[in-house]
Amino acid sequence: MNRYPEDELVVKAPEGEKIVLLVFDGLGDIPHPDFGGKTPLEAAKTPNLDRLAREGALGRIIPVAIGITPGSGPAHLGLFGYDPLELEIGRGVLEALGIGVALNAQSLSARANFATMDAKGIITDRRAGRIPTEKTIGICKKLQENIGVFEGVKVEIFPAKEHRFVVVFRGEGLADGLSDADPHREGSPLPEIRATKAGAEKAARVINAFLKKTQEILKNESPANAILLRGLATPPTIPLFPERFKVKAGAIATYPMYKGLARLVGMEILKVSGESYEDEFKTYIENYDKYDYFFIHIKGTDSAGEDGDFARKVKVIEEVDRILPILTAKMPAVLAVTGDHSTPALLKSHSWHPVPLLVCSRFVCRDSTQRLTEQEAVHGALGMFPSRDLMKILLSNAKRMDKYGA
Amino acid sequence: MNRYPEDELVVKAPEGEKIVLLVFDGLGDIPHPDFGGKTPLEAAKTPNLDRLAREGALGRIIPVAIGITPGSGPAHLGLFGYDPLELEIGRGVLEALGIGVALNAQSLSARANFATMDAKGIITDRRAGRIPTEKTIGICKKLQENIGVFEGVKVEIFPAKEHRFVVVFRGEGLADGLSDADPHREGSPLPEIRATKAGAEKAARVINAFLKKTQEILKNESPANAILLRGLATPPTIPLFPERFKVKAGAIATYPMYKGLARLVGMEILKVSGESYEDEFKTYIENYDKYDYFFIHIKGTDSAGEDGDFARKVKVIEEVDRILPILTAKMPAVLAVTGDHSTPALLKSHSWHPVPLLVCSRFVCRDSTQRLTEQEAVHGALGMFPSRDLMKILLSNAKRMDKYGA
Repeated sequence: MNRYPEDELVVKAPEGEKIVLLVFDGLGDIPHPDFGGKTPLEAAKTPNLDRLAREGALGRIIPVAIGITPGSGPAHLGLFGYDPLELEIGRGVLEALGIGVALNAQSLSARANFATMDAKGIITDRRAGRIPTEKTIGICKKLQENIGVFEGVKVEIFPAKEHRFVVVFRGEGLADGLSDADPHREGSPLPEIRATKAGAEKAARVINAFLKKTQEILKNESPANAILLRGLATPPTIPLFPERFKVKAGAIATYPMYKGLARLVGMEILKVSGESYEDEFKTYIENYDKYDYFFIHIKGTDSAGEDGDFARKVKVIEEVDRILPILTAKMPAVLAVTGDHSTPALLKSHSWHPVPLLVCSRFVCRDSTQRLTEQEAVHGALGMFPSRDLMKILLSNAKRMDKYGA
Repeated sequence: MNRYPEDELVVKAPEGEKIVLLVFDGLGDIPHPDFGGKTPLEAAKTPNLDRLAREGALGRIIPVAIGITPGSGPAHLGLFGYDPLELEIGRGVLEALGIGVALNAQSLSARANFATMDAKGIITDRRAGRIPTEKTIGICKKLQENIGVFEGVKVEIFPAKEHRFVVVFRGEGLADGLSDADPHREGSPLPEIRATKAGAEKAARVINAFLKKTQEILKNESPANAILLRGLATPPTIPLFPERFKVKAGAIATYPMYKGLARLVGMEILKVSGESYEDEFKTYIENYDKYDYFFIHIKGTDSAGEDGDFARKVKVIEEVDRILPILTAKMPAVLAVTGDHSTPALLKSHSWHPVPLLVCSRFVCRDSTQRLTEQEAVHGALGMFPSRDLMKILLSNAKRMDKYGA
């Protein structure tokens, strides 16, 4: 199966120039009435980005579809040149990536909660009283030590925050297409897993046996004497990024989920010596000669937006701008600066707004924009287009594409 | 098969006003650092186009897809209202059109090279030492006179430049889906043609017999004692332009390939008395009453771009602008001025950049643009959209479209 026939026609054999995609997570924003009606990009002092904006061209990208608020998975798939509406990343897969678990086609992952079940098997608390993380770590350990193997399928259990954890089933013949083991409300019994697609029967059987066993192991625990599973999923089959686009691709990120997403499409994860943005940029410089394409991920803008912290979002942007010369000391032929989606501080959440984009290259269209801001991006020469098309623009600017047709 | 169901719904019975599509081949460009950071359209003095830009509306068209560099074939199909990703024009077909050969559904065309083969059948030079055109003309004549007929299939051989020529097979039962008779590198034997799709078996058999015969005819030629064939293709089945859009369509072009592309979609090719742009505009005036739609093709902008000759691209634009009053003396109700794709002088090649578009009509949206340039087009009221949608805008402005739905 080749979902991307155009690639075969136009992506050149490995040659051409270097590309850097610098992603400020959740970069896009909307005017905030408490901060002079500005957006964080407008409020921030960004002399280095301003210079790049004058030299380059602006535009706006639509992560999934107009008016749709994307999660981090689809938003990044778009930036990586995939159609997020075609490639669904199951919630379980994203959770596993988020805590740094490596997955392959034989891995079926689920989000899990500890819960409380009464003597009649009714779920009375879907979060087991939000038990603290330390307790979850302990119970996960107990489960892991006693759980055993089901029809050759191994189980890995990873604690997360509070009552949350992740279960990964690994073995042959596990397939997608499973209902949740979660009544989704209190006062109902725990439903068995059902196969909702042909081929998922073995997985349903294995997981039901697993659930039965967990109830034995947890029977004396209180309040966490049951577990709920949802979002059971295998990773999507993805035509790998380095093969599709014929680039040696390195990912520079500090948060597990973004490393996981990059690994999922086949990028190599570069070791960053610390947690700072400076460490990330230094990693780029150290690896400059070894890769054709770099994905560099800046997390702080999204976290600040999610917290509704306008000032902190400004600060993250200014901090990255200040150290940008570390990166531009080895200026790639093509540098794109954008976000995976918008996370307006006013909304305290991801949003549907188009994301401002800056592309620097010798060959971008002319425009008159002076700064990378939401408003200037409206007038940028790159126009507004789906995120998934950005990769083609970057490859073309790096002279890595051939003509389509004669 | 109807690939364009929307046409049936909304293209009116033949009535409405006249449309002219004036195409400057490769018009779009990017700022050139050696010419004050301007594009040729920005540098050119174009009082007549400026007046039209003030009256009309600007926009930008995407020939094939965002970030994709189109060849001339797909780029023109887009302008003619077709989806270039759906209708593939094989390389052999385009080459045949390029030298003015008429094709129909029974024509299978190939690009051909003279090559050198050693005694063991190994291709030692894929270009036969780039023999001069005169020599190619002579050998083509010899081949044509001696080649004969294969299973009722006739062969026509047309010399092109240097070692290149075109072979057209004409007969019943010839189909697309054939491998190349070309090792694509020196040091390998000449591969036989294989059918890669069901239905192409006869064509494979015929062409292999043809190739065997050419080796007999050429055995004493040196260095051109073998031929390579590639891009074997029949013309695509195209819902014809005059039927789809219910217009009597005339094409005015001086280069064979563009006449060929227009003929391929069913336009009539109007005789131009000379080679100049003035001759082309006069042809329009002479035929004004006889057609509903005119495609007028200006070649010089693309050639200048391909040569990296910024000044000549400016000159072509200025020259056409100077004689534009010949055309506008019979101003059509709808006049569109655009390119099929961009050919930036800085890149010396076709490119992926959006192409500026000007539409003049009593009914275009209002905008504040003053000149047809890449940068002003960013702010045009027509926005940025795929080339294949332009035809609908032109038809609607000419009152040739009905409402969709009630």
